Amino acid sequence: MPSPPTAGLLLIGDEILSGRTKDKNLGYIADFLTGLGIDLMEARVVADIEDDIVAALNALKVRYSYVFTTGGIGPTHDDITADAVAKAFGVPIDHDPRAVAILKAHYDPGMLNEARMRMARIPQGASLIENPVSKAPGFRIGNVFVMAGVPKIMQGMLESLKPQLEGGTPMLSANVTAFIGEGDLAKPLKEIQDRYREVVIGSYPFEEQGRYGSHLVLRSRDAAKLAEAAAEVEAMTGSLKASGTVRVWS
Amino acid sequence: MPSPPTAGLLLIGDEILSGRTKDKNLGYIADFLTGLGIDLMEARVVADIEDDIVAALNALKVRYSYVFTTGGIGPTHDDITADAVAKAFGVPIDHDPRAVAILKAHYDPGMLNEARMRMARIPQGASLIENPVSKAPGFRIGNVFVMAGVPKIMQGMLESLKPQLEGGTPMLSANVTAFIGEGDLAKPLKEIQDRYREVVIGSYPFEEQGRYGSHLVLRSRDAAKLAEAAAEVEAMTGSLKASGTVRVWS
Repeated sequence: MPSPPTAGLLLIGDEILSGRTKDKNLGYIADFLTGLGIDLMEARVVADIEDDIVAALNALKVRYSYVFTTGGIGPTHDDITADAVAKAFGVPIDHDPRAVAILKAHYDPGMLNEARMRMARIPQGASLIENPVSKAPGFRIGNVFVMAGVPKIMQGMLESLKPQLEGGTPMLSANVTAFIGEGDLAKPLKEIQDRYREVVIGSYPFEEQGRYGSHLVLRSRDAAKLAEAAAEVEAMTGSLKASGTVRVWS
Repeated sequence: MPSPPTAGLLLIGDEILSGRTKDKNLGYIADFLTGLGIDLMEARVVADIEDDIVAALNALKVRYSYVFTTGGIGPTHDDITADAVAKAFGVPIDHDPRAVAILKAHYDPGMLNEARMRMARIPQGASLIENPVSKAPGFRIGNVFVMAGVPKIMQGMLESLKPQLEGGTPMLSANVTAFIGEGDLAKPLKEIQDRYREVVIGSYPFEEQGRYGSHLVLRSRDAAKLAEAAAEVEAMTGSLKASGTVRVWS
Protein backbone atom coordinates (compact mmCIF):
# COMPACT_ATOMS: atom_id res chain seq x y z
CA MET A 1 0.00 0.00 0.00
CA PRO A 2 1.52 3.41 -0.93
CA SER A 3 2.04 5.95 1.86
CA PRO A 4 -1.14 7.91 2.41
CA PRO A 5 -1.18 11.63 1.69
CA THR A 6 -0.71 13.75 4.81
CA ALA A 7 -1.89 17.17 5.88
CA GLY A 8 -1.09 19.95 8.32
CA LEU A 9 -3.60 22.56 9.46
CA LEU A 10 -2.95 26.14 10.51
CA LEU A 11 -5.73 28.01 12.31
CA ILE A 12 -5.01 31.73 12.35
CA GLY A 13 -6.56 34.24 14.72
CA ASP A 14 -6.18 36.04 18.07
CA GLU A 15 -9.80 35.22 18.87
CA ILE A 16 -9.14 31.48 19.11
CA LEU A 17 -6.17 31.89 21.46
CA SER A 18 -7.93 34.44 23.67
CA GLY A 19 -10.88 32.10 24.10
CA ARG A 20 -13.37 34.53 22.56
CA THR A 21 -14.08 32.21 19.63
CA LYS A 22 -14.35 28.49 20.25
CA ASP A 23 -12.84 26.89 17.17
CA LYS A 24 -15.04 24.59 15.15
CA ASN A 25 -12.87 24.27 12.05
CA LEU A 26 -10.34 21.74 13.34
CA GLY A 27 -12.92 19.01 13.95
CA TYR A 28 -14.70 19.69 10.68
CA ILE A 29 -11.52 19.61 8.59
CA ALA A 30 -10.33 16.50 10.47
CA ASP A 31 -13.53 14.67 9.51
CA PHE A 32 -13.31 15.91 5.92
CA LEU A 33 -9.71 14.73 5.45
CA THR A 34 -10.31 11.41 7.18
CA GLY A 35 -13.15 10.83 4.73
CA LEU A 36 -10.72 11.34 1.85
CA GLY A 37 -8.07 9.03 3.25
CA ILE A 38 -5.73 11.95 3.96
CA ASP A 39 -3.99 11.76 7.34
CA LEU A 40 -4.14 15.01 9.29
CA MET A 41 -0.86 14.80 11.18
CA GLU A 42 -0.65 18.12 12.98
CA ALA A 43 -2.57 21.31 13.62
CA ARG A 44 -1.35 24.63 14.90
CA VAL A 45 -3.11 27.74 16.11
CA VAL A 46 -1.27 31.05 15.85
CA ALA A 47 -2.20 34.68 16.49
CA ASP A 48 -2.51 37.48 13.92
CA ILE A 49 1.25 38.01 13.97
CA GLU A 50 2.97 37.86 10.59
CA ASP A 51 6.21 36.27 11.78
CA ASP A 52 4.33 33.53 13.60
CA ILE A 53 2.16 32.74 10.57
CA VAL A 54 5.18 32.64 8.24
CA ALA A 55 7.19 30.40 10.59
CA ALA A 56 4.32 27.94 11.02
CA LEU A 57 3.66 27.83 7.27
CA ASN A 58 7.30 27.21 6.50
CA ALA A 59 7.42 24.36 9.02
CA LEU A 60 4.21 22.70 7.79
CA LYS A 61 4.49 23.07 4.02
CA VAL A 62 7.71 21.08 3.71
CA ARG A 63 6.53 18.36 6.03
CA TYR A 64 3.07 17.40 4.71
CA SER A 65 1.46 16.71 1.34
CA TYR A 66 -1.11 19.44 1.93
CA VAL A 67 -1.46 22.42 4.27
CA PHE A 68 -4.76 24.11 4.99
CA THR A 69 -5.14 27.49 6.66
CA THR A 70 -8.24 29.16 8.06
CA GLY A 71 -8.74 32.80 8.98
CA GLY A 72 -7.37 36.23 8.21
CA ILE A 73 -8.48 36.80 4.61
CA GLY A 74 -11.19 39.42 5.14
CA PRO A 75 -11.15 43.18 4.47
CA THR A 76 -10.02 44.52 7.86
CA HIS A 77 -6.57 45.50 9.15
CA ASP A 78 -6.25 42.29 11.18
CA ASP A 79 -6.55 40.16 8.03
CA ILE A 80 -2.91 39.51 7.22
CA THR A 81 -2.87 35.91 6.07
CA ALA A 82 -2.49 36.54 2.32
CA ASP A 83 0.56 38.74 2.92
CA ALA A 84 2.08 36.20 5.27
CA VAL A 85 1.59 33.40 2.73
CA ALA A 86 3.22 35.50 -0.01
CA LYS A 87 6.15 36.10 2.33
CA ALA A 88 6.46 32.40 3.18
CA PHE A 89 6.62 31.59 -0.55
CA GLY A 90 8.84 34.57 -1.38
CA VAL A 91 6.48 35.91 -4.05
CA PRO A 92 4.88 39.35 -4.58
CA ILE A 93 1.25 40.00 -3.79
CA ASP A 94 -1.15 42.34 -5.54
CA HIS A 95 -4.73 42.71 -6.70
CA ASP A 96 -5.48 39.67 -8.82
CA PRO A 97 -7.59 40.40 -11.95
CA ARG A 98 -9.59 37.17 -11.56
CA ALA A 99 -10.39 37.99 -7.93
CA VAL A 100 -11.20 41.61 -8.79
CA ALA A 101 -13.65 40.38 -11.45
CA ILE A 102 -15.39 38.16 -8.90
CA LEU A 103 -15.78 41.03 -6.44
CA LYS A 104 -16.97 43.41 -9.17
CA ALA A 105 -19.65 40.96 -10.19
CA HIS A 106 -20.79 40.54 -6.59
CA TYR A 107 -20.80 44.02 -5.08
CA ASP A 108 -22.82 47.05 -6.10
CA PRO A 109 -20.40 49.58 -7.64
CA GLY A 110 -20.51 51.88 -4.61
CA MET A 111 -19.73 49.09 -2.22
CA LEU A 112 -16.46 47.87 -3.73
CA ASN A 113 -14.21 50.19 -1.78
CA GLU A 114 -10.49 49.91 -1.02
CA ALA A 115 -11.08 47.68 2.01
CA ARG A 116 -13.15 45.14 0.10
CA MET A 117 -10.59 45.26 -2.71
CA ARG A 118 -8.05 43.98 -0.15
CA MET A 119 -9.84 40.65 -0.49
CA ALA A 120 -8.61 40.49 -4.10
CA ARG A 121 -4.96 40.61 -3.04
CA ILE A 122 -3.58 37.20 -3.98
CA PRO A 123 0.04 36.00 -3.99
CA GLN A 124 1.57 35.67 -7.45
CA GLY A 125 1.23 32.20 -8.93
CA ALA A 126 -1.73 31.20 -6.78
CA SER A 127 -4.97 29.75 -8.12
CA LEU A 128 -8.29 30.83 -6.65
CA ILE A 129 -10.60 28.77 -4.45
CA GLU A 130 -14.25 29.47 -5.11
CA ASN A 131 -16.29 30.85 -2.23
CA PRO A 132 -19.91 29.82 -2.81
CA VAL A 133 -21.13 31.71 0.27
CA SER A 134 -19.79 35.26 0.19
CA LYS A 135 -17.78 35.24 -3.09
CA ALA A 136 -14.41 36.68 -1.92
CA PRO A 137 -12.15 33.78 -2.91
CA GLY A 138 -9.57 31.75 -1.05
CA PHE A 139 -6.48 30.62 -2.91
CA ARG A 140 -4.02 27.82 -3.38
CA ILE A 141 -0.31 28.28 -3.76
CA GLY A 142 1.93 25.23 -3.98
CA ASN A 143 0.56 22.71 -1.53
CA VAL A 144 -1.05 25.36 0.68
CA PHE A 145 -4.82 26.03 0.62
CA VAL A 146 -5.87 29.34 2.18
CA MET A 147 -9.46 29.54 3.42
CA ALA A 148 -11.71 31.86 5.40
CA GLY A 149 -12.20 31.44 9.14
CA VAL A 150 -15.99 31.72 9.28
CA PRO A 151 -17.07 28.05 9.44
CA LYS A 152 -19.82 28.26 6.84
CA ILE A 153 -17.53 29.97 4.33
CA MET A 154 -14.62 27.66 5.13
CA GLN A 155 -16.86 24.64 4.56
CA GLY A 156 -17.95 25.99 1.19
CA MET A 157 -14.34 26.54 0.15
CA LEU A 158 -13.41 23.03 1.25
CA GLU A 159 -16.10 21.65 -1.08
CA SER A 160 -14.77 23.83 -3.91
CA LEU A 161 -11.17 22.68 -3.56
CA LYS A 162 -12.00 19.01 -2.97
CA PRO A 163 -11.44 17.93 -6.61
CA GLN A 164 -7.84 19.16 -6.34
CA LEU A 165 -7.00 16.77 -3.52
CA GLU A 166 -5.58 13.37 -4.18
CA GLY A 167 -7.12 11.14 -1.55
CA GLY A 168 -5.66 7.95 -0.18
CA THR A 169 -6.97 4.53 0.70
CA PRO A 170 -9.71 5.36 3.17
CA MET A 171 -8.94 4.92 6.85
CA LEU A 172 -11.52 2.52 8.25
CA SER A 173 -12.49 2.36 11.88
CA ALA A 174 -14.28 0.06 14.27
CA ASN A 175 -15.49 0.81 17.77
CA VAL A 176 -15.92 -1.44 20.76
CA THR A 177 -17.46 0.09 23.87
CA ALA A 178 -17.16 -1.75 27.17
CA PHE A 179 -18.19 -0.83 30.69
CA ILE A 180 -14.77 -1.89 31.91
CA GLY A 181 -12.19 0.56 33.22
CA GLU A 182 -9.16 1.26 31.00
CA GLY A 183 -6.82 -0.10 33.66
CA ASP A 184 -8.53 -3.49 33.57
CA LEU A 185 -8.28 -4.00 29.85
CA ALA A 186 -4.98 -2.22 29.17
CA LYS A 187 -2.81 -5.35 29.29
CA PRO A 188 -4.83 -7.63 26.95
CA LEU A 189 -5.48 -4.63 24.69
CA LYS A 190 -1.75 -3.98 24.33
CA GLU A 191 -1.24 -7.67 23.49
CA ILE A 192 -3.73 -7.30 20.64
CA GLN A 193 -2.11 -4.04 19.50
CA ASP A 194 1.29 -5.74 19.47
CA ARG A 195 -0.01 -8.45 17.14
CA TYR A 196 -1.72 -6.04 14.71
CA ARG A 197 0.83 -3.55 13.45
CA GLU A 198 -1.51 -2.51 10.59
CA VAL A 199 -4.17 -1.41 13.07
CA VAL A 200 -3.88 1.55 15.44
CA ILE A 201 -5.89 1.01 18.60
CA GLY A 202 -6.85 3.93 20.81
CA SER A 203 -8.53 3.74 24.19
CA TYR A 204 -10.72 6.57 25.50
CA PRO A 205 -12.17 6.40 28.99
CA PHE A 206 -15.61 7.71 29.77
CA GLU A 207 -17.94 8.03 32.69
CA GLU A 208 -21.71 7.92 32.39
CA GLN A 209 -23.86 8.42 35.46
CA GLY A 210 -21.25 6.86 37.72
CA ARG A 211 -20.51 3.98 35.35
CA TYR A 212 -16.98 3.81 34.01
CA GLY A 213 -16.08 2.46 30.64
CA SER A 214 -13.73 2.56 27.68
CA HIS A 215 -14.31 3.38 24.06
CA LEU A 216 -11.86 1.27 22.09
CA VAL A 217 -11.28 2.65 18.62
CA LEU A 218 -9.48 0.61 15.98
CA ARG A 219 -8.28 2.28 12.79
CA SER A 220 -6.72 0.71 9.72
CA ARG A 221 -6.58 0.90 5.94
CA ASP A 222 -6.71 -2.91 5.82
CA ALA A 223 -10.35 -3.99 6.15
CA ALA A 224 -9.58 -7.64 6.82
CA LYS A 225 -7.02 -6.95 9.54
CA LEU A 226 -9.33 -4.36 11.07
CA ALA A 227 -12.21 -6.83 11.28
CA GLU A 228 -9.92 -9.47 12.77
CA ALA A 229 -8.49 -7.14 15.38
CA ALA A 230 -11.93 -5.76 16.26
CA ALA A 231 -13.24 -9.29 16.75
CA GLU A 232 -10.34 -9.98 19.10
CA VAL A 233 -11.01 -6.82 21.09
CA GLU A 234 -14.67 -7.71 21.30
CA ALA A 235 -13.86 -11.26 22.46
CA MET A 236 -11.32 -9.91 24.96
CA THR A 237 -13.82 -7.57 26.62
CA GLY A 238 -16.41 -10.36 26.68
CA SER A 239 -14.02 -12.77 28.34
CA LEU A 240 -12.93 -10.16 30.89
CA LYS A 241 -16.55 -9.64 31.86
CA ALA A 242 -17.13 -13.38 32.10
CA SER A 243 -13.95 -13.97 34.12
CA GLY A 244 -15.21 -12.09 37.15
CA THR A 245 -11.66 -10.80 37.72
CA VAL A 246 -12.46 -7.21 36.76
CA ARG A 247 -15.02 -4.80 37.99
CA VAL A 248 -17.70 -4.40 35.36
CA TRP A 249 -20.06 -1.44 35.59
CA SER A 250 -23.47 -2.22 34.22
CA MET B 1 4.16 47.62 32.22
CA PRO B 2 6.28 44.43 32.35
CA SER B 3 5.90 41.89 29.53
CA PRO B 4 3.01 39.59 30.28
CA PRO B 5 3.67 35.91 30.88
CA THR B 6 3.06 33.77 27.80
CA ALA B 7 1.93 30.21 27.22
CA GLY B 8 1.98 27.48 24.60
CA LEU B 9 -0.48 24.59 24.53
CA LEU B 10 0.08 21.07 23.21
CA LEU B 11 -2.98 18.87 22.67
CA ILE B 12 -1.93 15.25 22.25
CA GLY B 13 -4.01 12.51 20.66
CA ASP B 14 -4.84 10.72 17.41
CA GLU B 15 -8.54 11.10 18.19
CA ILE B 16 -8.46 14.89 17.79
CA LEU B 17 -6.69 14.76 14.41
CA SER B 18 -8.90 11.98 13.06
CA GLY B 19 -12.01 13.96 13.93
CA ARG B 20 -13.37 11.31 16.30
CA THR B 21 -13.07 13.60 19.31
CA LYS B 22 -13.97 17.25 18.95
CA ASP B 23 -11.52 19.08 21.18
CA LYS B 24 -12.95 21.16 23.99
CA ASN B 25 -9.74 21.80 25.91
CA LEU B 26 -8.27 24.57 23.77
CA GLY B 27 -11.15 26.97 24.32
CA TYR B 28 -11.35 26.19 28.03
CA ILE B 29 -7.62 26.67 28.63
CA ALA B 30 -7.65 29.84 26.51
CA ASP B 31 -10.37 31.33 28.73
CA PHE B 32 -8.56 30.20 31.89
CA LEU B 33 -5.25 31.79 30.86
CA THR B 34 -6.86 34.99 29.62
CA GLY B 35 -8.51 35.30 33.03
CA LEU B 36 -5.07 35.14 34.67
CA GLY B 37 -3.50 37.69 32.33
CA ILE B 38 -1.34 35.03 30.67
CA ASP B 39 -1.17 35.33 26.87
CA LEU B 40 -1.74 32.03 25.08
CA MET B 41 0.44 32.55 22.01
CA GLU B 42 0.25 29.24 20.21
CA ALA B 43 -1.39 25.84 20.34
CA ARG B 44 -0.45 22.64 18.59
CA VAL B 45 -2.18 19.33 18.13
CA VAL B 46 -0.05 16.25 17.54
CA ALA B 47 -0.75 12.53 17.24
CA ASP B 48 0.33 9.79 19.65
CA ILE B 49 3.78 9.66 18.06
CA GLU B 50 6.70 10.08 20.45
CA ASP B 51 8.98 11.99 18.07
CA ASP B 52 6.23 14.46 17.24
CA ILE B 53 5.42 15.08 20.90
CA VAL B 54 9.09 15.56 21.80
CA ALA B 55 9.69 17.94 18.89
CA ALA B 56 6.65 20.07 19.74
CA LEU B 57 7.58 20.20 23.43
CA ASN B 58 11.13 21.25 22.65
CA ALA B 59 9.88 24.02 20.38
CA LEU B 60 7.30 25.35 22.85
CA LYS B 61 9.14 25.09 26.16
CA VAL B 62 11.95 27.43 25.17
CA ARG B 63 9.63 29.96 23.62
CA TYR B 64 6.93 30.57 26.26
CA SER B 65 6.77 31.15 30.02
CA TYR B 66 4.51 28.13 30.44
CA VAL B 67 3.57 25.10 28.38
CA PHE B 68 0.47 23.02 29.04
CA THR B 69 -0.19 19.59 27.59
CA THR B 70 -3.38 17.55 27.55
CA GLY B 71 -3.82 13.86 26.83
CA GLY B 72 -1.86 10.64 26.89
CA ILE B 73 -1.33 10.01 30.61
CA GLY B 74 -3.73 7.10 31.16
CA PRO B 75 -2.98 3.39 31.67
CA THR B 76 -3.20 2.11 28.08
CA HIS B 77 -0.49 1.50 25.47
CA ASP B 78 -1.39 4.66 23.56
CA ASP B 79 -0.61 6.82 26.61
CA ILE B 80 2.95 7.87 25.88
CA THR B 81 3.05 11.49 27.00
CA ALA B 82 5.00 10.98 30.26
CA ASP B 83 7.76 9.13 28.41
CA ALA B 84 7.89 11.76 25.69
CA VAL B 85 8.17 14.54 28.27
CA ALA B 86 11.01 12.69 30.06
CA LYS B 87 12.77 12.37 26.72
CA ALA B 88 12.30 16.06 25.91
CA PHE B 89 13.87 16.98 29.25
CA GLY B 90 16.55 14.27 29.03
CA VAL B 91 15.66 12.75 32.40
CA PRO B 92 14.82 9.17 33.46
CA ILE B 93 11.25 8.12 34.20
CA ASP B 94 10.07 5.55 36.74
CA HIS B 95 7.33 4.83 39.25
CA ASP B 96 7.20 7.82 41.57
CA PRO B 97 6.65 6.91 45.26
CA ARG B 98 4.31 9.92 45.78
CA ALA B 99 2.18 8.91 42.80
CA VAL B 100 2.21 5.25 43.83
CA ALA B 101 0.95 6.27 47.29
CA ILE B 102 -1.91 8.23 45.73
CA LEU B 103 -2.97 5.29 43.56
CA LYS B 104 -2.66 2.84 46.50
CA ALA B 105 -4.93 5.01 48.60
CA HIS B 106 -7.49 5.22 45.78
CA TYR B 107 -7.74 1.73 44.30
CA ASP B 108 -8.82 -1.49 46.01
CA PRO B 109 -5.73 -3.69 46.36
CA GLY B 110 -6.79 -6.06 43.59
CA MET B 111 -7.37 -3.25 41.15
CA LEU B 112 -3.92 -1.64 41.22
CA ASN B 113 -2.43 -3.76 38.45
CA GLU B 114 0.60 -3.08 36.26
CA ALA B 115 -1.42 -1.03 33.78
CA ARG B 116 -2.80 1.33 36.43
CA MET B 117 0.69 1.56 37.95
CA ARG B 118 1.79 3.05 34.61
CA MET B 119 -0.05 6.16 35.72
CA ALA B 120 2.52 6.54 38.53
CA ARG B 121 5.41 6.80 36.07
CA ILE B 122 6.67 10.37 36.43
CA PRO B 123 9.81 11.95 34.97
CA GLN B 124 12.58 12.53 37.52
CA GLY B 125 12.49 15.97 39.08
CA ALA B 126 8.81 16.58 38.36
CA SER B 127 6.28 17.70 40.96
CA LEU B 128 2.78 16.23 40.95
CA ILE B 129 -0.44 17.97 39.94
CA GLU B 130 -3.39 16.90 42.01
CA ASN B 131 -6.28 15.23 40.18
CA PRO B 132 -9.43 15.86 42.22
CA VAL B 133 -11.58 13.78 39.87
CA SER B 134 -9.93 10.40 39.31
CA LYS B 135 -6.79 10.73 41.47
CA ALA B 136 -4.05 9.64 38.99
CA PRO B 137 -1.92 12.79 39.04
CA GLY B 138 -0.56 15.05 36.34
CA PHE B 139 2.87 16.55 36.79
CA ARG B 140 4.98 19.62 36.28
CA ILE B 141 8.55 19.58 35.11
CA GLY B 142 10.34 22.87 34.47
CA ASN B 143 7.81 25.16 32.84
CA VAL B 144 5.73 22.28 31.42
CA PHE B 145 2.42 21.22 33.00
CA VAL B 146 1.19 17.78 31.93
CA MET B 147 -2.54 17.15 32.27
CA ALA B 148 -5.14 14.55 31.34
CA GLY B 149 -7.15 14.83 28.13
CA VAL B 150 -10.61 14.13 29.54
CA PRO B 151 -12.06 17.65 29.92
CA LYS B 152 -13.46 17.20 33.43
CA ILE B 153 -10.17 15.81 34.74
CA MET B 154 -8.11 18.40 32.87
CA GLN B 155 -10.25 21.17 34.37
CA GLY B 156 -9.71 19.79 37.87
CA MET B 157 -5.95 19.68 37.33
CA LEU B 158 -5.96 23.23 36.02
CA GLU B 159 -7.60 24.37 39.28
CA SER B 160 -4.98 22.41 41.26
CA LEU B 161 -2.01 23.93 39.50
CA LYS B 162 -3.39 27.47 39.39
CA PRO B 163 -1.52 28.70 42.51
CA GLN B 164 1.78 27.86 40.76
CA LEU B 165 1.11 30.27 37.90
CA GLU B 166 2.29 33.82 38.00
CA GLY B 167 -0.43 35.80 36.28
CA GLY B 168 -0.03 39.11 34.51
CA THR B 169 -1.94 42.35 34.33
CA PRO B 170 -5.35 41.15 33.17
CA MET B 171 -6.20 41.60 29.52
CA LEU B 172 -9.38 43.67 29.34
CA SER B 173 -11.76 43.64 26.44
CA ALA B 174 -14.61 45.69 25.05
CA ASN B 175 -17.07 44.72 22.34
CA VAL B 176 -18.94 46.83 19.83
CA THR B 177 -21.43 45.08 17.60
CA ALA B 178 -22.72 46.86 14.51
CA PHE B 179 -24.99 45.75 11.69
CA ILE B 180 -22.50 47.14 9.20
CA GLY B 181 -20.42 44.94 6.90
CA GLU B 182 -16.71 44.66 7.65
CA GLY B 183 -15.83 46.20 4.31
CA ASP B 184 -17.72 49.39 5.17
CA LEU B 185 -16.00 50.01 8.47
CA ALA B 186 -12.55 48.61 7.70
CA LYS B 187 -10.98 51.94 6.78
CA PRO B 188 -12.09 54.05 9.78
CA LEU B 189 -11.43 51.05 12.05
CA LYS B 190 -7.84 50.83 10.84
CA GLU B 191 -7.43 54.56 11.48
CA ILE B 192 -8.48 54.01 15.09
CA GLN B 193 -6.20 50.96 15.38
CA ASP B 194 -3.27 53.04 14.06
CA ARG B 195 -3.81 55.65 16.78
CA TYR B 196 -4.10 53.11 19.63
CA ARG B 197 -1.01 50.94 19.67
CA GLU B 198 -1.81 49.71 23.22
CA VAL B 199 -5.12 48.28 22.03
CA VAL B 200 -5.52 45.30 19.69
CA ILE B 201 -8.68 45.55 17.63
CA GLY B 202 -10.14 42.49 15.96
CA SER B 203 -13.08 42.41 13.56
CA TYR B 204 -15.27 39.32 13.20
CA PRO B 205 -18.03 39.25 10.60
CA PHE B 206 -21.35 37.56 11.29
CA GLU B 207 -24.62 36.92 9.57
CA GLU B 208 -27.90 36.61 11.40
CA GLN B 209 -31.05 35.79 9.46
CA GLY B 210 -29.78 37.59 6.38
CA ARG B 211 -28.47 40.59 8.29
CA TYR B 212 -24.73 41.18 8.06
CA GLY B 213 -22.68 42.69 10.81
CA SER B 214 -19.34 42.94 12.54
CA HIS B 215 -18.28 42.15 16.06
CA LEU B 216 -15.50 44.57 16.89
CA VAL B 217 -13.41 43.33 19.79
CA LEU B 218 -10.91 45.62 21.51
CA ARG B 219 -8.33 44.16 23.88
CA SER B 220 -5.83 45.97 26.08
CA ARG B 221 -4.12 45.87 29.46
CA ASP B 222 -4.63 49.65 29.72
CA ALA B 223 -8.17 50.31 30.94
CA ALA B 224 -8.15 54.02 30.09
CA LYS B 225 -6.88 53.54 26.55
CA LEU B 226 -9.31 50.69 26.04
CA ALA B 227 -12.27 52.82 27.09
CA GLU B 228 -11.10 55.67 24.86
CA ALA B 229 -10.63 53.45 21.83
CA ALA B 230 -13.94 51.67 22.40
CA ALA B 231 -15.73 55.02 22.58
CA GLU B 232 -14.13 55.99 19.27
CA VAL B 233 -15.21 52.73 17.64
CA GLU B 234 -18.72 53.20 18.97
CA ALA B 235 -18.84 56.79 17.66
CA MET B 236 -17.41 55.66 14.32
CA THR B 237 -20.10 53.03 13.76
CA GLY B 238 -22.78 55.51 14.83
CA SER B 239 -21.56 58.14 12.39
CA LEU B 240 -21.32 55.60 9.57
CA LYS B 241 -24.94 54.67 10.16
CA ALA B 242 -25.98 58.34 10.25
CA SER B 243 -24.00 59.20 7.12
CA GLY B 244 -26.16 57.10 4.85
CA THR B 245 -23.05 56.20 2.84
CA VAL B 246 -22.98 52.60 3.94
CA ARG B 247 -25.55 49.88 3.82
CA VAL B 248 -26.85 49.23 7.30
CA TRP B 249 -28.77 46.05 7.99
CA SER B 250 -31.38 46.44 10.65
